Order: sequence, then C-alpha cells, then structure tokens
Amino acid sequence: MSKILVINGSSRVDGNTEQLTSIMLEDISHTHIHLRDYVIEPIIDKRHTEEGFSPVDDDYDQIIQSVLEHDILIFATPLYWYGMSGYMKNFIDRWSQSLRDKRFDFKKEMGTKKGFVVICGGDTPYMKGLPLVQQFQYIFDFVGLEYIGYLIGKGNAPGEVLKDERAIAHANYWNGYFKMI
Amino acid sequence: MSKILVINGSSRVDGNTEQLTSIMLEDISHTHIHLRDYVIEPIIDKRHTEEGFSPVDDDYDQIIQSVLEHDILIFATPLYWYGMSGYMKNFIDRWSQSLRDKRFDFKKEMGTKKGFVVICGGDTPYMKGLPLVQQFQYIFDFVGLEYIGYLIGKGNAPGEVLKDERAIAHANYWNGYFKMI
Amino acid sequence: MSKILVINGSSRVDGNTEQLTSIMLEDISHTHIHLRDYVIEPIIDKRHTEEGFSPVDDDYDQIIQSVLEHDILIFATPLYWYGMSGYMKNFIDRWSQSLRDKRFDFKKEMGTKKGFVVICGGDTPYMKGLPLVQQFQYIFDFVGLEYIGYLIGKGNAPGEVLKDERAIAHANYWNGYFKMI
Amino acid sequence: MSKILVINGSSRVDGNTEQLTSIMLEDISHTHIHLRDYVIEPIIDKRHTEEGFSPVDDDYDQIIQSVLEHDILIFATPLYWYGMSGYMKNFIDRWSQSLRDKRFDFKKEMGTKKGFVVICGGDTPYMKGLPLVQQFQYIFDFVGLEYIGYLIGKGNAPGEVLKDERAIAHANYWNGYFKMI
Repeated sequence: MSKILVINGSSRVDGNTEQLTSIMLEDISHTHIHLRDYVIEPIIDKRHTEEGFSPVDDDYDQIIQSVLEHDILIFATPLYWYGMSGYMKNFIDRWSQSLRDKRFDFKKEMGTKKGFVVICGGDTPYMKGLPLVQQFQYIFDFVGLEYIGYLIGKGNAPGEVLKDERAIAHANYWNGYFKMI
Repeated sequence: MSKILVINGSSRVDGNTEQLTSIMLEDISHTHIHLRDYVIEPIIDKRHTEEGFSPVDDDYDQIIQSVLEHDILIFATPLYWYGMSGYMKNFIDRWSQSLRDKRFDFKKEMGTKKGFVVICGGDTPYMKGLPLVQQFQYIFDFVGLEYIGYLIGKGNAPGEVLKDERAIAHANYWNGYFKMI
Repeated sequence: MSKILVINGSSRVDGNTEQLTSIMLEDISHTHIHLRDYVIEPIIDKRHTEEGFSPVDDDYDQIIQSVLEHDILIFATPLYWYGMSGYMKNFIDRWSQSLRDKRFDFKKEMGTKKGFVVICGGDTPYMKGLPLVQQFQYIFDFVGLEYIGYLIGKGNAPGEVLKDERAIAHANYWNGYFKMI
Repeated sequence: MSKILVINGSSRVDGNTEQLTSIMLEDISHTHIHLRDYVIEPIIDKRHTEEGFSPVDDDYDQIIQSVLEHDILIFATPLYWYGMSGYMKNFIDRWSQSLRDKRFDFKKEMGTKKGFVVICGGDTPYMKGLPLVQQFQYIFDFVGLEYIGYLIGKGNAPGEVLKDERAIAHANYWNGYFKMI
C-alpha cells in the first residue's frame, strides 16, 4: 500500500483545493500537510558560496522528513496568479538546500516516489493552469519524481469547485486510481 | 521620460539576474528593489470573508507605493525550480489584497503601466523558462499591464550569464529600446 | 438541440482518435467528417496581393459549408509529432481564405459556435499534447469560438486508447455534457 | 564547416520568414528549400499494418536525402494559425515513414545534427509562437536533434519583419553564431 502525502499550498481553511483533494482521496489513507501551518523561510541561495547552506531554524526540515517517508506526493495548490502559491514556492525553492543535505541523497530518494498535482483556480484554470502543469513536469523531471498526472478544478468562492462537474468526474477517476496503487 | 522600477526576486547579491538586468539598463535611470531586503508576508486569502483583508504589518505597502509611482515594471527573477522565486511569488500573491485596497484602483493604475520580464536560469532557460513567460502574460493581462517583452539568460554560478552571448545581445537590444521610451 | 460536427484529422480508419470520440459522443446525434476523405489544398497566402485569394478547386468549400451549419465543432486529431495532423493543419490554414470570403462573415459565424478538442497520442500526450491545447486556444480566440474543453487520450496501436481508463472516464464525463447541450 | 539546410514552410515568395532567415544567414553558405515547390503527400499512417508503409510517389524522399546530407536543419515557418504551416506539418508527419525506412537509421542520422527554428507571425508571435517553440522541442527530442535555439519575428504584410528591430537584433546575433560553427 502506497503512503500518500498531500502538500497543500492554500492559505485558506477548507478552500476549493482542499475540498477537491478530499474528494479525490475519499476513503484513502493519507497524510495532509498545510504549508500555511508551518514556518518556511524563503531560500537563501548559497550554492556557490564556500560555506554552503546554513542551517535554517524553521519547520522545513520537519516537512522534508515527512516527504521522505511517503511514496506519493500530491502537490495541491490554488492557482494564485496563474502559478503555485508563494507558500508552496518557498517550500520547493528550499529543495535546492535539500539537494546538498548530507544526511540523505535527495534525488535518489525522490527518484523512488511519484508526484501528482492538484490545481484549483477561478479564472479558466483548465487553460491558464497549464503553464503550472508544465512547470511541475520540469520540477519532477529534475528530482526524478514520476509524474502520475494532474487534476484541475474551477472554483473561486468557497465550495465553488463542488459545482464543477468536470473536476468532480476527474477526481472520482483518480480516486479509483489511488485506491489501486 | 518613463520611470523604470526593477523588482528583483533573487536571494543572492549581484547574481546573474541582477547582472543581466544591469547590462540591459546601462546608462538608464531606474530604481532597483531587491525583494529579499524587505519583509513580505505570504497572502492570507480573505477575499471571501466578511471582514475582508486585514492590514499586514510588513513592507509590502512600501513597495506597492513605489510600484504606483513608476511607469515600467521590470520583474527580474532567477528561474528557481522553473518558476519565479518565492520572494517574487509572495509579492505578487499579495496583489490580491491590493485589488481590494480602497486607497487606489489597482487595476486602473496598473493599466497605465508596462511590464517586462527578466529570467536567468542554469537549466536550459530558453526552453524551460517559457511556462514562466506565459504565466506573466496571464498576470499582466489580469491587471492590464502591457507586456513589453522578456529577456532570458543562462547562468548558474555567479557571473556565468556574462558569458551567455545570446543573452548579452538581447540585453543590448533592449537597452536601446529602454533608452527610447 | 445543438448540432455537432466532428472534424477528424486522422489518416487511419477507426484509429484511437475516432474511437475515443465515438465513446464521447455515444448516443448523441452528430456528423463525422474525416478530412482524409477530402482533397484540401494547402493555403497559398494571397492576403497581401492585389487580386486576393483565387478560388481553389477542391473540397474545402464543401466542408466549410458543413461547418457553418453546425453549432459545435469538435476538432479530433491524433497527436502527430506533438501537433495536429497535416490534414487538419491544411484545413485550418485555409481559414485565412474564408476570412476573406464575401459570401459570409466567417468570424461572425464562428463567434456563435463552440469548439472542442480531442487529442490522442502515444507519447505522454497528457503533457506533450498541452502545446496543442494552447494553440487551439489561440485559434479559437481569433475566430471567436468558445473553447468548451479538451479530451486527451493515450494510444498508439489501434484500440489502445480503450485501455486508457483516464481517457474513458473523461470521455464519459463529456458524454454527459454533450447530452445536455 | 557545418552544412546548413533551411527548410522553409511558407506559401509566399519572399515572405517575412524568408527575409528574416536571409538576414540571419547573410554571408553564410547554405541551401534553402521551399516546401511549396515540392509535392509532399500527407502521411498515411501504416505503422500498425502488416504491410507497413507503401512507397509514395512524390518529392518527399528527395528532401530527406538533402536533410541527411546537412548538419544543421533550420525550420523556417510562418506562424499560420499559431502553428507551423501545413506544408511543413505534412513534411514532418512523413518522418514517421522515414523512421521505418530500411535504407538508413533516421534517428541515428538525426542524432548527429542540430535543429533551429525561425518563426514569423503577425499576431503577438513572441507570446503566441511559444507553443510552437515547445512543440519543436518535443519533435527534436524524439529524433535526437540538438535544439540550438529559435528566432521569432513579427510581420504580416510583406517586408514588415524588417521593421521589427527586436527580430533583426536577434537575427544578427544568430548570424554571428552560425558563422562560428
């Protein structure tokens, strides 16, 4: 049985992204992390300094430990300004630090996992979310995550995505998928 | 004479993005803001709450005031994980708050300005930076910024972009352009 | 009841694209045109010549007449080399001629219709078909077709798409959709 | 000295695409093929039939022989409906046949060559040409062509691209590049 981790980039409690993800994972055991509940400092790029990256006193490491313990990583983010939220971007930017972490081989670990993307947005997300879908392809390729797929939903006001039948149909398909792996 | 503001999303002093932007703006009067020097909280989406957005005690407002005073906004960001940096994303995410700011009409103000994008990355940025170029199109369209163009450079280690002759040639072209407007 | 026209760009009888489209339109009245059954000359761009476009002695006009008589246009194409097939491209290229056709106002006519895209490909079509999805956005925007959505399927050898459960689930969703409009 | 072949997909004599390409290759020895001067039948996909592809009596083979004799392939196409022209698409579609040609190993041959893309369009080509830039990435990746880069120009009426200073500056940069390889 695959261990599933949802990394949620929304700033809102029970927002559309969370609701759609919940439908997709109904009756499926998983861990759900809300990045907004953690302190994650933005990256300070020290790849090319002599001393390398400094330890950062925040919650990033705790989340990475959880990442390492799961098999499937679901990146669930509202489409803020046609990209992932700043919460999620700051988290992923810090992977540059993990790539140089001596305690583990980040790429090797990620190379054994699979990634999935959930995007909810109010402004024609099925089209304007596609650059983000492509960005995740590049991100996943770089660390070796296998790209399972993506689920897009349309919703702005709370609960709106529940009326997006296209999204719900897709979520139900993926529910069946995640139940099998 | 147009007033030019560079909004720089790099975490590094004198990084490739800054160097390329400097070449592009040589002998051209402009203001250069490094987002890393400011405290910008991530957005807390309160668009759909009764009370609306709460005032945030950070430096965001100061930067927006500067934005409003300039005619051309140059978004200069390293390509972190195939997107804009978290510094810049958090800044732009907060525009959702400015859209509801009673002191000014954000879209109307932005609609009188022009935007430009500078991207520097180490991993085939001329291809893998294109989703970000498209994302900015959607961002600019939403607020009404006219998209002047974009400048991409290849560079990872400090100073590397200076050896990217393609980027330098493009930067020189844009230097001529910005001298004329 | 909307009148539906499928414009199929495949070179193969009963290929994956046709099969997926058939599932999507099961029990729904529609017309299905295979472009391979018609002679459509490539465009000769005469937009900027004095004499303008010359009449072309082929089957293009017959298809355009059918286009004008339908409300929903479904562009169904295999993903050949990560784009629409040459059959379909030659057909769409000729729209430049229809835009100058005095017998009707092509944009005005198209502006009353809706467009949909079906893409089947063998090589990671859910990702590598996205530039084509975006291209159709620009095409539809130009002539004023409303972009209903898109359906992607994975299949190479004949019948393979029938095993793509993701595609079938989506096709079923759209079947419900097209039954309602 | 690299042998350069321009494969031109325009339907127009001395159009913008041709003019921009000529500036890019000024004083550089090269062969220039206009696909409109050849008869190239659309592909008939027989990959999955027992008998395989049938020989086609047209000019495709002649062009492929020329392709095989050159080191650098420049795909120069007007942006027709936000994609390559049908002339060029029919040509590339036929590569599926060359992949099964017993006389040579198409991928192996292509894997020793480099590709470049020139695109001229009238409607915001610097943005709306990007899906085509990405499509060529997938095409080149598939056959193993190294993607040198791309040159975009804005022009609709004949000669218009000559006034696109951005395109001319880029063309001049690439002229220097092609003189060196």
